[in-house]
Amino acid sequence: MNRRMKSVQIVHTIEGVRSAVAEARKAGQRIGFVPTMGGLHEGHGSLMDRSVSECGFTVVSIFVNALQFGPAEDFQKYPRELDVDAAFCERRGVDLIFAPTHEEMYPREQRTFVEVTGLTDGLCGKYRPGHFRGVTTVVAKLLLAVLPDVAYFGEKDGQQLAVVKRMVADLNFPVEICPVATVREPDGLAMSTRNRYLAPEERRAATAVYRSLQRARALLAGGERDAATVRAAVHDVLAAERAIQVQYVEVVDAEELQPLSYIDGRVMVAVAVYVGGTRLIDNLVYP
Amino acid sequence: MNRRMKSVQIVHTIEGVRSAVAEARKAGQRIGFVPTMGGLHEGHGSLMDRSVSECGFTVVSIFVNALQFGPAEDFQKYPRELDVDAAFCERRGVDLIFAPTHEEMYPREQRTFVEVTGLTDGLCGKYRPGHFRGVTTVVAKLLLAVLPDVAYFGEKDGQQLAVVKRMVADLNFPVEICPVATVREPDGLAMSTRNRYLAPEERRAATAVYRSLQRARALLAGGERDAATVRAAVHDVLAAERAIQVQYVEVVDAEELQPLSYIDGRVMVAVAVYVGGTRLIDNLVYP
Repeated sequence: MNRRMKSVQIVHTIEGVRSAVAEARKAGQRIGFVPTMGGLHEGHGSLMDRSVSECGFTVVSIFVNALQFGPAEDFQKYPRELDVDAAFCERRGVDLIFAPTHEEMYPREQRTFVEVTGLTDGLCGKYRPGHFRGVTTVVAKLLLAVLPDVAYFGEKDGQQLAVVKRMVADLNFPVEICPVATVREPDGLAMSTRNRYLAPEERRAATAVYRSLQRARALLAGGERDAATVRAAVHDVLAAERAIQVQYVEVVDAEELQPLSYIDGRVMVAVAVYVGGTRLIDNLVYP
Repeated sequence: MNRRMKSVQIVHTIEGVRSAVAEARKAGQRIGFVPTMGGLHEGHGSLMDRSVSECGFTVVSIFVNALQFGPAEDFQKYPRELDVDAAFCERRGVDLIFAPTHEEMYPREQRTFVEVTGLTDGLCGKYRPGHFRGVTTVVAKLLLAVLPDVAYFGEKDGQQLAVVKRMVADLNFPVEICPVATVREPDGLAMSTRNRYLAPEERRAATAVYRSLQRARALLAGGERDAATVRAAVHDVLAAERAIQVQYVEVVDAEELQPLSYIDGRVMVAVAVYVGGTRLIDNLVYP
């Protein structure tokens, strides 16, 4: 059967997603889950492809989670195009879209929060207070609504991936977290829903983010072990673009995300910049 | 089949409890769960009885959770008698005991915490900082290890019950929380593992806790609506016992556990006292 010919089912309630998943599970299917906020692009597409290839039943959630946006952030303007996103999912062979309303996910004042300490102190956590608490709380809620066997997360959001992995391990969630490599534009820019905010000149400048990480990779591959040297080299590449304002450049261990001065073991070089009003992040993990 | 004749199975790992529960579920059984810290008494017994009568497969966890004890509390002296507790469970018809080690539940530094805000500010939360964070975190972990259909909690720990119910609702846990009435000694003292700490004279004095709540109930039944009057009456009964030191007497709404001055709707009258070195709690919900 050609999966692309099958039409995708859309449900808006937790009850709806539970009964569809229960049926698929009863039929012996492995359940794959791709949580998204919509605004789908090829990065999401690669998560879906992976799930569809590994699981008999793939669920994609589309939910712009207010809880993870700061008051000055882009919650209002974040793209919401369910028809376009549903067509995207259908082309990728997704079986079920779970697109709850805010009221379905937060029917009463949310008093319960899931928080991962330590790993959320630095990087984006430092500049987006409450963001990761919003992420882990909604991911916990989504995992408990869907109860998938495996959930797919992109490596582009490197801190989010590490935080979700830790949450799942720490709380005994019965799910495997599967990281998927960042998908990039031909010029290296990491796919992101927020790329569509970029004006043409900003879009061109944004390529410096990937180039700066390539510079870091070359240094690490060449044996550089001084984190300050790596960070300075990344800053140099970014500083050459006047449209870019650096928020942070950090070298951290890849597990606990703590800043390093001497590079040893698996590290993440993580970057956050503003290009005009648009915040972009990217990272590399080495080796 | 006489359930008491069946021997109870004991497992010490999450993997062990998961595979036993999966097998029972495959056999079409409803899964009931009674989380305990051991030191079992008739209060626990009534939770087990309820589960055994409603579910085809009953799991009891026995785990003294370090995370919910304060540094000056009784973690070290809390009873640990797995043989006695296992025999108790077997007599009640329990199918499976999950008795993990500390290392099984906390194999690495616990960085993820589940926290219920608001409901944990007052009552015991005020005097046991971090206690409810420890409770909700371990209950989340246990629920995710066992994945029961229904979990049984005693009304004696009234704030804990309200907090767990809120956590389950807020995070979409696929489990029903079933409250079970407090079991009392003939003289009214609520069953508690900590009652065994009481010296004979303390044990006698401790009955004032129940009598104080009976006094509150009589006032409420008589139409009293002033919370300060109810609290004062409870204090009066407790003050008559010199062995008792009151920690708190509160009148709160039964849902959000916020202090009331005017009594309206469903309320909880909650008491915490020290009798010698032993901390006891009790409550009534009215109507």
